[in-house]
Amino acid sequence: MMRIEEMTSIEFAEAVERDPVVILPIGATEAHGPHLPLGTDAFQPEAIADAVAERVNGLVAPAIKYGQHSSTRNLPGTIGITSSTLRSMIVDILESLHRNGIRKIVIVSGHSGSVHMAMIKDACEDVVRRYQMDVVFLADYDIGKGLQEEIGAGPGDGHGGMMETSRIMAIRPDLVLKNRTKGEFVSAGYAVLSDPERCYPQGFVGDAAKANAQAGKRLNDYITDALTDLIRKDLGVRE
Amino acid sequence: MMRIEEMTSIEFAEAVERDPVVILPIGATEAHGPHLPLGTDAFQPEAIADAVAERVNGLVAPAIKYGQHSSTRNLPGTIGITSSTLRSMIVDILESLHRNGIRKIVIVSGHSGSVHMAMIKDACEDVVRRYQMDVVFLADYDIGKGLQEEIGAGPGDGHGGMMETSRIMAIRPDLVLKNRTKGEFVSAGYAVLSDPERCYPQGFVGDAAKANAQAGKRLNDYITDALTDLIRKDLGVRE
Amino acid sequence: MMRIEEMTSIEFAEAVERDPVVILPIGATEAHGPHLPLGTDAFQPEAIADAVAERVNGLVAPAIKYGQHSSTRNLPGTIGITSSTLRSMIVDILESLHRNGIRKIVIVSGHSGSVHMAMIKDACEDVVRRYQMDVVFLADYDIGKGLQEEIGAGPGDGHGGMMETSRIMAIRPDLVLKNRTKGEFVSAGYAVLSDPERCYPQGFVGDAAKANAQAGKRLNDYITDALTDLIRKDLGVRE
Amino acid sequence: MMRIEEMTSIEFAEAVERDPVVILPIGATEAHGPHLPLGTDAFQPEAIADAVAERVNGLVAPAIKYGQHSSTRNLPGTIGITSSTLRSMIVDILESLHRNGIRKIVIVSGHSGSVHMAMIKDACEDVVRRYQMDVVFLADYDIGKGLQEEIGAGPGDGHGGMMETSRIMAIRPDLVLKNRTKGEFVSAGYAVLSDPERCYPQGFVGDAAKANAQAGKRLNDYITDALTDLIRKDLGVRE
Amino acid sequence: MMRIEEMTSIEFAEAVERDPVVILPIGATEAHGPHLPLGTDAFQPEAIADAVAERVNGLVAPAIKYGQHSSTRNLPGTIGITSSTLRSMIVDILESLHRNGIRKIVIVSGHSGSVHMAMIKDACEDVVRRYQMDVVFLADYDIGKGLQEEIGAGPGDGHGGMMETSRIMAIRPDLVLKNRTKGEFVSAGYAVLSDPERCYPQGFVGDAAKANAQAGKRLNDYITDALTDLIRKDLGVRE
Amino acid sequence: MMRIEEMTSIEFAEAVERDPVVILPIGATEAHGPHLPLGTDAFQPEAIADAVAERVNGLVAPAIKYGQHSSTRNLPGTIGITSSTLRSMIVDILESLHRNGIRKIVIVSGHSGSVHMAMIKDACEDVVRRYQMDVVFLADYDIGKGLQEEIGAGPGDGHGGMMETSRIMAIRPDLVLKNRTKGEFVSAGYAVLSDPERCYPQGFVGDAAKANAQAGKRLNDYITDALTDLIRKDLGVRE
Repeated sequence: MMRIEEMTSIEFAEAVERDPVVILPIGATEAHGPHLPLGTDAFQPEAIADAVAERVNGLVAPAIKYGQHSSTRNLPGTIGITSSTLRSMIVDILESLHRNGIRKIVIVSGHSGSVHMAMIKDACEDVVRRYQMDVVFLADYDIGKGLQEEIGAGPGDGHGGMMETSRIMAIRPDLVLKNRTKGEFVSAGYAVLSDPERCYPQGFVGDAAKANAQAGKRLNDYITDALTDLIRKDLGVRE
Repeated sequence: MMRIEEMTSIEFAEAVERDPVVILPIGATEAHGPHLPLGTDAFQPEAIADAVAERVNGLVAPAIKYGQHSSTRNLPGTIGITSSTLRSMIVDILESLHRNGIRKIVIVSGHSGSVHMAMIKDACEDVVRRYQMDVVFLADYDIGKGLQEEIGAGPGDGHGGMMETSRIMAIRPDLVLKNRTKGEFVSAGYAVLSDPERCYPQGFVGDAAKANAQAGKRLNDYITDALTDLIRKDLGVRE
Repeated sequence: MMRIEEMTSIEFAEAVERDPVVILPIGATEAHGPHLPLGTDAFQPEAIADAVAERVNGLVAPAIKYGQHSSTRNLPGTIGITSSTLRSMIVDILESLHRNGIRKIVIVSGHSGSVHMAMIKDACEDVVRRYQMDVVFLADYDIGKGLQEEIGAGPGDGHGGMMETSRIMAIRPDLVLKNRTKGEFVSAGYAVLSDPERCYPQGFVGDAAKANAQAGKRLNDYITDALTDLIRKDLGVRE
Repeated sequence: MMRIEEMTSIEFAEAVERDPVVILPIGATEAHGPHLPLGTDAFQPEAIADAVAERVNGLVAPAIKYGQHSSTRNLPGTIGITSSTLRSMIVDILESLHRNGIRKIVIVSGHSGSVHMAMIKDACEDVVRRYQMDVVFLADYDIGKGLQEEIGAGPGDGHGGMMETSRIMAIRPDLVLKNRTKGEFVSAGYAVLSDPERCYPQGFVGDAAKANAQAGKRLNDYITDALTDLIRKDLGVRE
Repeated sequence: MMRIEEMTSIEFAEAVERDPVVILPIGATEAHGPHLPLGTDAFQPEAIADAVAERVNGLVAPAIKYGQHSSTRNLPGTIGITSSTLRSMIVDILESLHRNGIRKIVIVSGHSGSVHMAMIKDACEDVVRRYQMDVVFLADYDIGKGLQEEIGAGPGDGHGGMMETSRIMAIRPDLVLKNRTKGEFVSAGYAVLSDPERCYPQGFVGDAAKANAQAGKRLNDYITDALTDLIRKDLGVRE
Repeated sequence: MMRIEEMTSIEFAEAVERDPVVILPIGATEAHGPHLPLGTDAFQPEAIADAVAERVNGLVAPAIKYGQHSSTRNLPGTIGITSSTLRSMIVDILESLHRNGIRKIVIVSGHSGSVHMAMIKDACEDVVRRYQMDVVFLADYDIGKGLQEEIGAGPGDGHGGMMETSRIMAIRPDLVLKNRTKGEFVSAGYAVLSDPERCYPQGFVGDAAKANAQAGKRLNDYITDALTDLIRKDLGVRE
């Protein structure tokens, strides 16, 4: 058993004895174009967390399902939290894991907005300054883009594009609409917009028509492999 | 489709047109004795939310999996957040739902610690003062205890006791341990303890040995029925 | 001399040497129906604090006269503070008492709204985690209801009802109006209301006509006795 | 009846109709030398508030008994709150009074530390920017020093000195010790000290031996007169 | 080299070895009548900091150019920050200097509004309670007024008056307008105003026509001398 | 005159009439290798702001000299503020500029750490949601890297590297040390480090030996041109 929510208190205490890595998936509830579910950013890190935890005998903490949103914040279905709430959430959970004896933590975020990422990073830095803990933090997309060219996603592929769509097709095929088109990104340069959604006329960026479950599976496997290696190397996990 | 995370942005926008109720399950990750999983307080409201949403054609928001903990905060596996983080979380999500056009919200908490409940209540009051929204907030246990005597739970049944165990046996039977005993509550009166776990020598309260899936199913159905009625009556949902 | 505000700095320092209990009364300024004064929730814990302090040779800290209010917050004369202000207030005062060498504290609240009580509890827990201090926290009503049946208050007696009215008749008879009626509670179930006062059509709950100074005196004595015992037992005060 | 805590909800609502001034006394619990009680800063504004309210048919809000302390914060008996808590407290109470229909407020502080005064001022400014309200804020000492020379207090008279001692002798003669000496102020220039009490070797500043109830009564009357005039003139109160 | 911003990391580290005093100038961007620049409150402490640092072989930290404003907050060109932001700013910088090994700090503020000064003081006190550091905090005006009479500034000289104008004429003569008049202060007593600028009909207080660079130079030298002495004496700097 | 600090209140008010753009330079005080001054991140945006303001008849707000730091936070001379302080600072200043009638703002940051940038972005988004204001926010480095290849900086050029060094050689040649080497970046992957400086063994990244004032001037001109164009196009400034 690897999901913390499925373990008893005693099982958890026993698992802590072997100094396991805890993987915390951070999702979001966010508009991802007309073809992808709002939970897209949650399904991806949850799947990765489960797969990686199995390989490194780690534990998966219950996912955080809400993130901070800038560009899609006015679109239907984006349900977000503020930057300070997100920061507090991460600090609290890390401190609580530390209290439980956990010393190795990997946070995987499915959403990678710059403010969202920065708040989690800032929270992690705050904690590692005060506690002896090894914390690794990344968006699974940070790794995934290493395969961007190879699977034919195109350099401009982004939010809700070919890569994300493929990955969800591999994880939750029932939730991806068949009718998929191409979404463009219309830059507003450095303007801070009150209507940032105008940069996303189709609500997503990339060629979703090219998405396929096979590419998605490759991406997921690739990220799983890379994260497993990283945990073994950076966190000294020997399993 | 009823889970917001499984809907696309467009499907969500269409659903909002019919003024649906959104049910937000709030769980916790908390020690629940030697026989129950740490996610006990999450599994229960999630199951209720799904069942009720189906009946009232409502939407289920992604669950919050972390709550505020007092008495079990030092036990293995309790992973909590502070009172102010919880309050901010609720305010942010309610504001975000309001921005999306949602006007009917039901918050169901699986955990019912007094500080936890008060922070959610305080957040809801803050929001209803500032926005036109109908908000209903309860712990599913608030309803469930109406059946306490009938199913033979005994007056002292509490945290991780016969009722909670039975409910999880009906929802996630794979996660309930067979070897179950009796847990007692040792009152510390009005003392504010730094080691409140000493009030729970077994880590739970009630006769878990008496728990059974049938009683759990009755409880879950009873709560589902009551909450369905409440939504139809209090929120004017006609489905 | 027992009231801290009436002691000099030197007298206080000397008193601290004998490791005294400090009792902090927390009141409120809140509508209590047409017959009771707005300071009802302050007068009660102040009277209890004085009486108990005399018996256990304790000290009475200056009362906090404002609390957090939910259900009566829109009624004339309710003057409240927010949950976070109340929490900060308690933390600050406890830390300041600790700095002064005080190690035994009893907080008695005359108001017992759930958010109000939870914030004080949360503040106390925050402090006991960080400092070596024995803190007891209760609403005097928590004890008082043990006598509810015996003095004939009826099971539904509540805010501004027979018990509270009787107690104020014993403490400040000049402030209780002669013309007293019956107040009912109209439940709104689990709805979070922007107009919660509609649950209190008369502004109070219980049969205030039955109130009498004798019952009030019994209640006050009963609470005083119980709190005195509790301090001796739980806080090891030997006076 | 003028004390809000002694009025019923209905009496308060009726009083609001005549647009009364509300006087909020702010005290402190602070070391005031070997001869004065810790509540010195509370007794003074409370007495002034009662006297002034009677003359202008105003209302007296329940006193705040805790303030922010810098120089005496390490002395026995000083029980203070932080600057942010004090600021929140004032904002909350002013907003609550505004919700009640109060439009004229006078805040009288017995303590006049610079940070303490600034936080209250800052809170008042915050409120008057957002609400239509007339707010007057002063330390009673601001007025009282106009009589400093005349009553022979000497230019260096300060915290716990001849003026304060005389005033308490007029208000609470039972709480002033007979054996009174002279206290000096030892300047630390502009250093921000962790042990600021070293500037007060005797714990007070001024010639307390010269204090007398007659001078105290004159001071209290003088402040009462001045504040009454100020309310009539600045707040347009015609009573 | 004395300005921290002009030093390299290594030069700074070397300078820290000799336990230098760091001078932090705090300015403001604030309306100063029709004849003075908005940066008046920044130019003065910056000039003083440079001059003093040279004499005591100290370091000058980059200036904070924004302060908290009450009375001029509605006037064109006043660009301020809130009290809590200012407080946080000071705490953060002092903690960062402490982390760098700095143990002697002098904060010189050019603006001397009461809330502004109190927040800085409160921040400094917070830091000296938690860290071993010698902190001196003053407004340069605190010293300067010792020369007020001698240079003929008149007792009512204040914001943007003869003294400030003279000092800027000595520091930045190019920025002082030739056409200078007299500004009066119209007291509002103790009222907390939403339009406090009405107390400054001309936007400044004092006889700016009498201002001259010579008097300004004398004031600047006087303050420089006094602050140099103070640093040598209070902070034990031997250079 | 373009620097706000050098304008009088009246001059500023007159300038506001023509709806000018205000440029706010945000610097930092941060270790930049052995050859560059700590104020490197301040000198650059200040120079850009002055040059651009001259061309578009804009105003330059007083610079913020402190930023948030992650990777260099433990190095000598890095003096930073926390993320929340930075966010508050930006919100306060933007609100204050709005109160002054300013509707076009360009924020140029010389430091481009991810948390630092995200906090400013988050603050700007907060403000544009609440006020009608055009806000542009960028790091001057965002533009500058468009010339990276052309001037021969190499793909890995970064913090304190050839580009930054060249730019400071053009702006403040007196502050750049002659002895300049090459600095490498040692990646720590996704680890959140308590000692992030180990990623910067030389304290900077890039070939500083190749830096020259000519390349710096080209970079500065290039950024100035681009920002001028951007202001004319995005903010509709016609000068």
